[in-house]
Amino acid sequence: MENIKLTITSISFLAPVQHDLQVVDSIIRAQAEGHYPGLSLALDLILKSGGKRIRPSVTLLVGYMLGAPREKLLTLAAAIELLHTATLIHDDLIDNSLLRRGMPTINSQWSPGATVLTGDFFFARAAKLAADTDSIPVMKIFSQTLSTIVNGEITQLFALKCHVDREDYFSRIYAKTASLFETAAMTAALISPANETTIEDMRQYGYNIGVAFQIVDDILDFTGEQQTLGKPVGNDLQQGLVTLPAICYAEANPDDEDIIPLLQGRCPNPNQMQRLIDAIRKSSAPECALKEAEQFIEKGISKLANQPAGLERNCLEDLARFIVHRFK
Amino acid sequence: MENIKLTITSISFLAPVQHDLQVVDSIIRAQAEGHYPGLSLALDLILKSGGKRIRPSVTLLVGYMLGAPREKLLTLAAAIELLHTATLIHDDLIDNSLLRRGMPTINSQWSPGATVLTGDFFFARAAKLAADTDSIPVMKIFSQTLSTIVNGEITQLFALKCHVDREDYFSRIYAKTASLFETAAMTAALISPANETTIEDMRQYGYNIGVAFQIVDDILDFTGEQQTLGKPVGNDLQQGLVTLPAICYAEANPDDEDIIPLLQGRCPNPNQMQRLIDAIRKSSAPECALKEAEQFIEKGISKLANQPAGLERNCLEDLARFIVHRFK
Repeated sequence: MENIKLTITSISFLAPVQHDLQVVDSIIRAQAEGHYPGLSLALDLILKSGGKRIRPSVTLLVGYMLGAPREKLLTLAAAIELLHTATLIHDDLIDNSLLRRGMPTINSQWSPGATVLTGDFFFARAAKLAADTDSIPVMKIFSQTLSTIVNGEITQLFALKCHVDREDYFSRIYAKTASLFETAAMTAALISPANETTIEDMRQYGYNIGVAFQIVDDILDFTGEQQTLGKPVGNDLQQGLVTLPAICYAEANPDDEDIIPLLQGRCPNPNQMQRLIDAIRKSSAPECALKEAEQFIEKGISKLANQPAGLERNCLEDLARFIVHRFK
Repeated sequence: MENIKLTITSISFLAPVQHDLQVVDSIIRAQAEGHYPGLSLALDLILKSGGKRIRPSVTLLVGYMLGAPREKLLTLAAAIELLHTATLIHDDLIDNSLLRRGMPTINSQWSPGATVLTGDFFFARAAKLAADTDSIPVMKIFSQTLSTIVNGEITQLFALKCHVDREDYFSRIYAKTASLFETAAMTAALISPANETTIEDMRQYGYNIGVAFQIVDDILDFTGEQQTLGKPVGNDLQQGLVTLPAICYAEANPDDEDIIPLLQGRCPNPNQMQRLIDAIRKSSAPECALKEAEQFIEKGISKLANQPAGLERNCLEDLARFIVHRFK
């Protein structure tokens, strides 16, 4: 599956929210104003290293589809993206990453202490934006989501390395990624005139596309090129983190002598590791993982079925499909 | 003023909330349950190194005085103390402190990454508890307070060292300490059947005793004994942090040759620094700073005047006075 490469395909599904995403950016940037001036610079740095703002786009599209009030929706979308941003600040510090999408990270510029506090500050401002939606359920879900994300990271930090475990993998990617997608979609429904069924459907839409998003990231870790990834190919596995492509490979090739250590819960030696990464890249394992991601996407899309047909619903479907078609 | 020493005097004003403080502790401990098991251990460690739970006591006493519903009040008090706890986790990491009140800090036991995440986790749980009060104004103030505290710390990190500036000092101790006391008192009023005037009076009660609390801490940094303080006498000044006793000394002794560098915004050399710390200890500067703290205490107490006389009001007065009578 060497033809799997990261290319940005059409993102026309973002067109209807393009202007709003700029407003969201300005709401986020305003959170640093009136505080220590370096915070604005730090925020600028990390916003520029941000991607396509897919999480706030989910919030905006779900909210518009369901008739959410615009101002509240923009605030919520900003809260979602800023929470994500704050977690990245601490993640980059913990991983000692010096670049994010080609931009210097905050920890590459500031002391660890200043970086910790910068992340804390933006957690506080994300919570403030969530409170500004004037919705108690949004606030509760928001703080719960941050607990889930951070608890997942702590668990991973102390977890057994080189451990092949499907259940463990899916609970990890829920905490890491799907929980925030779930929140992005569900909270938009919560501030809309939507009934319980719709809120639950939106939660599931977010959950499923979030799981798929992380699976695709994990595939790209194997199939991408070092230059594009900004880290070595197979970096997760080299760190002892077993993701779906490796799990698929282990399931299909239990007798491969390089997979045996993993199945016994031991980390392969460096030679075995390199051979294993090459073997996974060349095998059908990435394709197998992609098929699973596609199933999550289709399940997510099915949760839109009872919603009003129209531009927003089409965009949410396209956004979901884009997640698995980031490479062609 | 060598007779100023840290001694725990009567804390009978806490008797009416003693049982509730245990409930608050159990609410806080419950926040780690169902998550990574090490989080319970970390929480236990930091709760044991905690002090007299003066902030949640303020919340409980104000709330009971004003007729707050008990369950909500306990949740709020837990939120306040857990927010304080979470900030200490990151503070100890940033300051590389290995002990807090004789107990090992979390950063002395865990990696920096795990310590960052542990603090983040308890920020999230504090926000969750605040949301559990079902009060939008509480949520907003709560997130605003965290912004204020963290922004203060970042500002201090990058601030000029050895800078004698009263205004700067008071804005620093507002961010560091008074803001959370203000929130502890004001949010208790917000969940009570209290009018705007009472809410504002409670805010001012909290603000004033919080300012006094930090001034007293800053006096103890000079007048305490190294063994009791767990850090060198005059530690703040040695770190370039000019607190009220040093400001009082500089105002009374502008011609002291050891104070001249400070007045010029330069840090004294080590010999000058040691002489200066000794001189401040022996001078009337700690007494002068204490008088200012007492004025804040009296102003705080005056804000209780329109509240119903009774046990809680008496306790709030005693609690305020205790803050400046921690040493005798």
